[in-house]
Amino acid sequence: MSKPYVIGMDMGGTNTVFGIVDARGQVIASDSIKTLKHDKFEDYVVDLHKAVKRLLESNDAVNKIKGIGIGAPNGNYYTGEIVKAPNLPWGPVIPLAEAISKAFDGIPVAVTNDANAAALGEMTYGAARGLKDFIMITLGTGVGSGIVINGQLVYGHDGFAGELGHMIVKRTNGRMCGCGRTGCLEAYCSATGVARTAREFLEIRKDPSTLRDLEISKITSKDVYDAAVAGDKLAKEIFEYTGTILGEAMADMTVFSSPQAFILFGGLTKAGELLMKPIKEAYDKNVLPIFKGKAKIILSELKESDAAVLGASALGWEAKYHYESPSTHSASSEIPMIVEK
Amino acid sequence: MSKPYVIGMDMGGTNTVFGIVDARGQVIASDSIKTLKHDKFEDYVVDLHKAVKRLLESNDAVNKIKGIGIGAPNGNYYTGEIVKAPNLPWGPVIPLAEAISKAFDGIPVAVTNDANAAALGEMTYGAARGLKDFIMITLGTGVGSGIVINGQLVYGHDGFAGELGHMIVKRTNGRMCGCGRTGCLEAYCSATGVARTAREFLEIRKDPSTLRDLEISKITSKDVYDAAVAGDKLAKEIFEYTGTILGEAMADMTVFSSPQAFILFGGLTKAGELLMKPIKEAYDKNVLPIFKGKAKIILSELKESDAAVLGASALGWEAKYHYESPSTHSASSEIPMIVEK
Repeated sequence: MSKPYVIGMDMGGTNTVFGIVDARGQVIASDSIKTLKHDKFEDYVVDLHKAVKRLLESNDAVNKIKGIGIGAPNGNYYTGEIVKAPNLPWGPVIPLAEAISKAFDGIPVAVTNDANAAALGEMTYGAARGLKDFIMITLGTGVGSGIVINGQLVYGHDGFAGELGHMIVKRTNGRMCGCGRTGCLEAYCSATGVARTAREFLEIRKDPSTLRDLEISKITSKDVYDAAVAGDKLAKEIFEYTGTILGEAMADMTVFSSPQAFILFGGLTKAGELLMKPIKEAYDKNVLPIFKGKAKIILSELKESDAAVLGASALGWEAKYHYESPSTHSASSEIPMIVEK
Repeated sequence: MSKPYVIGMDMGGTNTVFGIVDARGQVIASDSIKTLKHDKFEDYVVDLHKAVKRLLESNDAVNKIKGIGIGAPNGNYYTGEIVKAPNLPWGPVIPLAEAISKAFDGIPVAVTNDANAAALGEMTYGAARGLKDFIMITLGTGVGSGIVINGQLVYGHDGFAGELGHMIVKRTNGRMCGCGRTGCLEAYCSATGVARTAREFLEIRKDPSTLRDLEISKITSKDVYDAAVAGDKLAKEIFEYTGTILGEAMADMTVFSSPQAFILFGGLTKAGELLMKPIKEAYDKNVLPIFKGKAKIILSELKESDAAVLGASALGWEAKYHYESPSTHSASSEIPMIVEK
């Protein structure tokens, strides 16, 4: 194989992590840069290119890269753009694939959102190996999802499908969500959702809890976890409440695509059985009879630090879009974008 | 083309309609038999075979059939079986594809559920021609759905995906549904759901309505439609209530697969703008901002009498499973079932 490596990039609001990955899913080497210290997108690309080049050189990997896969918030597989990402300051539409491929002299680039990248990572190297129908749910600051049906990621007609964190789980009196609506799954079952539940429970209820010793406005999901592990009843109930809402929502996801498995991923899954038990109970209780006992609900097998890079790298192998310099191309000044759809 | 026709069959609880269909989607001829007058499945198959044979003979189509496609309640694409269909008395698992292919001397047979068949019909011959991502929603006695993603029907890992009529739309105090749970979309947005809403409204509310002149327990969705068209305010509100619930649910479906279009089909769609207006308003109001203004919500372009037969026939062209007589096959007494998955 003349080009034995791909680069996987996980572009987050704070850091951009990237790695050189081989065909067996080994991360040969990785590094990162700060995403948000760059006021201009162009400067970010220059710095990222420099850092990746350095990593390639020190690993004898220059000219051995078949493609670059990038997981980015609101990354669009069809257009290669980032569209209206709440945590990035570089305008509503960022031409990510074009800029990166240009910086890397035309290496093919593919972009998708971070949860889709995680699903690809899981399918290629993790708990979803061999599965053709599964749903990946990422439980972090927000709730993301990557849906695989018949072996293919679901992108939808516009490249933005799989936003299950924005299913409405409370139709009336729901919590405000970052998307501007109310009652979204994400407002309840993310790390921040758990912290909000803690604040609500502490305010509304009167029973004792070690969480009352903390400054209420600063309680985190980690605090709730620590209290629950130490036996605090109210803290345990917060996880029960969270898991029940998620399990009910997952039962609704099942009528859509009847997956073999749900794979849960992200910081909140560190709660383990505190969260998994109520999820499974609510799922079993609520799922349509014809689907009962069929789908497994399991935890990711990938290290959180690796998953996004590995997943993005999996996309790198099939990357098609590549920047062509106008001078070597036709008279057209338009960037040719290969869209497979 | 040596075999220029397929047979499409729409197996309902009351009637089984079948037609000879050519490659352009013309129904050359059609007929039907009563489904439920047969106490035994074997007798049903014998009668169905006789009736189809008669139709083939009178249309010079014997030996010109490439395949048979069947839409049936709870029909499973992977196994060719009907599983736990509430309206059929022939046991929990009916080996439909096997029995039909056997009766027809090994002609390939494919089975799917009725809503999936309608979606295939719409994609091949109707409003969804050229669309790769759409959701078909059938609003009849129940609420069914057929989901198409990237040009493929979604069957899920077990062949039963696409049961959107059983999304939960009322998490608390929801109506009993035929599935044994409460709060399903089907309990509100089917023809029977509209009649239930009418009864509820008439009981709870005090305002006048011409519906009060009818025997409340016998009110149908048709009565509500007639009253609404005649200007009855309460009847109109019943459709607003129904459409709002459906529009809200469709906004949740969009975060899953981001379709280009929703196609509505079935008896209840005869209500036209009475139903479509509140659906569209609720959808626009509730859909995640990134999807706003993207999906069309349209009515089926197929005649209801043709749609299921046409849709099932579309499946007939690709039918792979065919019964092989044990004597011409190996010593094995097992029926070889070709499952593509």
